[in-house]
Amino acid sequence: MRLSRYFLPVLKENPAEAQIVSHRLMLRAGMIKQASAGIYSWLPLGFKVLRRIENIVHEEQARAGHMAMLMPTIQSADLWRESGRYDAYGDEMLRITDRGGRDMLFTPTAEELITDIFRAHVSSYKDLPLTMYQIQWKFRDEIRPRFGVMRGREFLMKDGYNFDLSKEDALHAYNRHLVSYLRTYERMGLQAIPMRADSGPIGGDDTHEFLVLAETGESEVFYDSAVTDLTFGDRDIDFDDVAQCAAIMEEFTTRYARTDETHDEALFAEVPEERRRTARGIEVGQIFYFGTKYSEPLGATVQGSDGKPVPVHMGSHGIGVSRLLGAIIEASHDDKGIIWPEGVTPFHAGIVNLRQGDAEADVACQALYDSLTALGLEPLYDDRKEGAGSKFATMDLIGLPWRITVGPRGLKNGVVELTSRRSGTSEEMAPEEAVQRIAQIYAGIA
Amino acid sequence: MRLSRYFLPVLKENPAEAQIVSHRLMLRAGMIKQASAGIYSWLPLGFKVLRRIENIVHEEQARAGHMAMLMPTIQSADLWRESGRYDAYGDEMLRITDRGGRDMLFTPTAEELITDIFRAHVSSYKDLPLTMYQIQWKFRDEIRPRFGVMRGREFLMKDGYNFDLSKEDALHAYNRHLVSYLRTYERMGLQAIPMRADSGPIGGDDTHEFLVLAETGESEVFYDSAVTDLTFGDRDIDFDDVAQCAAIMEEFTTRYARTDETHDEALFAEVPEERRRTARGIEVGQIFYFGTKYSEPLGATVQGSDGKPVPVHMGSHGIGVSRLLGAIIEASHDDKGIIWPEGVTPFHAGIVNLRQGDAEADVACQALYDSLTALGLEPLYDDRKEGAGSKFATMDLIGLPWRITVGPRGLKNGVVELTSRRSGTSEEMAPEEAVQRIAQIYAGIA
Repeated sequence: MRLSRYFLPVLKENPAEAQIVSHRLMLRAGMIKQASAGIYSWLPLGFKVLRRIENIVHEEQARAGHMAMLMPTIQSADLWRESGRYDAYGDEMLRITDRGGRDMLFTPTAEELITDIFRAHVSSYKDLPLTMYQIQWKFRDEIRPRFGVMRGREFLMKDGYNFDLSKEDALHAYNRHLVSYLRTYERMGLQAIPMRADSGPIGGDDTHEFLVLAETGESEVFYDSAVTDLTFGDRDIDFDDVAQCAAIMEEFTTRYARTDETHDEALFAEVPEERRRTARGIEVGQIFYFGTKYSEPLGATVQGSDGKPVPVHMGSHGIGVSRLLGAIIEASHDDKGIIWPEGVTPFHAGIVNLRQGDAEADVACQALYDSLTALGLEPLYDDRKEGAGSKFATMDLIGLPWRITVGPRGLKNGVVELTSRRSGTSEEMAPEEAVQRIAQIYAGIA
Repeated sequence: MRLSRYFLPVLKENPAEAQIVSHRLMLRAGMIKQASAGIYSWLPLGFKVLRRIENIVHEEQARAGHMAMLMPTIQSADLWRESGRYDAYGDEMLRITDRGGRDMLFTPTAEELITDIFRAHVSSYKDLPLTMYQIQWKFRDEIRPRFGVMRGREFLMKDGYNFDLSKEDALHAYNRHLVSYLRTYERMGLQAIPMRADSGPIGGDDTHEFLVLAETGESEVFYDSAVTDLTFGDRDIDFDDVAQCAAIMEEFTTRYARTDETHDEALFAEVPEERRRTARGIEVGQIFYFGTKYSEPLGATVQGSDGKPVPVHMGSHGIGVSRLLGAIIEASHDDKGIIWPEGVTPFHAGIVNLRQGDAEADVACQALYDSLTALGLEPLYDDRKEGAGSKFATMDLIGLPWRITVGPRGLKNGVVELTSRRSGTSEEMAPEEAVQRIAQIYAGIA
């Protein structure tokens, strides 16, 4: 993409309404624009990152054997009356009356509707296990929406649901999701720590939240510093392997890590003092096992192998897709702007032409652009007639991890400059070498 | 994907509520399930096709130089009051009051919000031309929703908006969209004929609807049969080339083709009698040029090259993404079920194992599965212990364009059977040849 043709309305000033850095930087980098309180439009740059995150979630869900589907945003109140949550959910549920006078609502989550689909179509234990998920817009009518996309009213969420014959099978689904989520977050350049949490309005016995450590996090968290040494890495996982998933679950959840909701001072005191940490965290996902909480009231049973009806054991699992943009920025930025991890960057590399209009510089930039594109990479080429300072400031603000700077002086020596946004270090090299280096970096993270 | 693990709730009986064939087949093939009147859940098979269609739209929009973004589903009534459409839109608008007592609505289209984004960020003629689009869920509270996803209340739509300095520039945007849409529909295996239409609540002077001919179409259409001989094919388009886009516009819209709304008997009579056709059509898209209808009331002006403010010229352009599934099925099915065009098929090929459990047949099927997957294709492997008749019936119903049948008898002679869903013809060949044939077919349509 050429910047001269791209809609990138960067702001020079810090917007007054933004209290936290991710909100400020998303507005300044022209990624989002508020439409109403807690409701945002996603401008082209923001939308590109949103799609990258969505795609990682889809790929990792497919890898774990889960099936993508989609449920509507507007749902009938009747189903929610069957589960008892229509009244229980409170004012955060956006309630709607349609032209026929029917009570409807904007989905804040979808346990009822997925259970309704299940009970209509699945009747035998032979059809289990079954896990389906969606990435769909949700609405929660927060009384005080704030922090940009971190606590918006309309937000994009991945919500998945497992149906199993027994508690044991459902706990494997729980572990499988935990493993899959660890990998998902790492691909986004995030360390998200599973912490024992409270189940809230979803209900159930077992639940872990995934938290990204950041000063601006909404939750106070307490943990053994050894949990931050764990990395998922490039493990070869068989998601049907019960023992393998259980072992990873144990590896990542045995050490103390809890939110303030479930914090236990006595247990925490057992952690060696030099490893006890108190910090703040941003919740980016949560997994639940809640057994038959929805299957019983909604009558979601299957015929067991003995012919008798059994209510299915369920769990649900969420990833805050739109919120993740805020969380990633909170965890990865500096004074100049965003620093995108390679896994989610909107463009793979920026090309800065220091002398737009200079024939040699223009040709060299175009050649770099074409070479990167031919390798399946997406560059953003700053082809505007602006000074170097302004071009660097824009690139730093929008946070592309790699920048190639092209100027007449370097070209005389046959070199361009490759700069890492994260380290700030630059290296001179031949244009074709810069292209190869960038290609290698992205090949390593695919 | 192995069918034994896939959620594919096919129905044996014809659902009583479905009046048209696409609705019937989408329910029978387990693609959708009604959640409320005119509101559907997309089950895994339906969602896969929806994504394929979405991806084609994204790819073709990018090719035409348009930028993807996303606007929220829930919008404030205030903007719609500025344009005068809040009252004018009528009962089809789903009106909502949030917990703070503010008037909101579920977006039926987004001219107001995109214009608001534009006026906030664009101030100079140098930033034009600009075209942005989204693929987002819309809601229209139809009094009598019917025909499944063809006339639902919650539906997925691509809506794009162009901003130009002059009428002339905006008309190039209009032509560019027409060209881009022709290519988009052809990739989906559809012939969609641009017809002069009525602008309805969007307003404006120039508008064309794209119609797919089908007996169940909601519109009566009148056309010169010569328009159905036109194909877009594999043309090399420069979307910045004003003359090239105008010439294609002329080629595809000069001959008589109108919906009943704009039909003119006298003009139609000038078409040679043997080429005059009356038929029914399904609307799958529409493009509009409406000049300053929204930019003037909303104050969306730019500074012209003479320094004076100029209201921008706009148009909007829609593709009915979810409705397209119905339209494709109406245009492509037989008594046995759906026949997916290769461009949108949920799986590229089916593999039917005639003797599940037979060691040789199982190994051969798995080898085919692995070979197709290694080539980037997605097979659906019917690995259930069912009879051949039931397996063929399922494959025919869900409409995968190619099927490989594997049985012990053929394997003795080193062959499998490759069957075309469309022609029904089968050919015996070595397994590796079947894989190569399928790979070639899909390479040709990418």
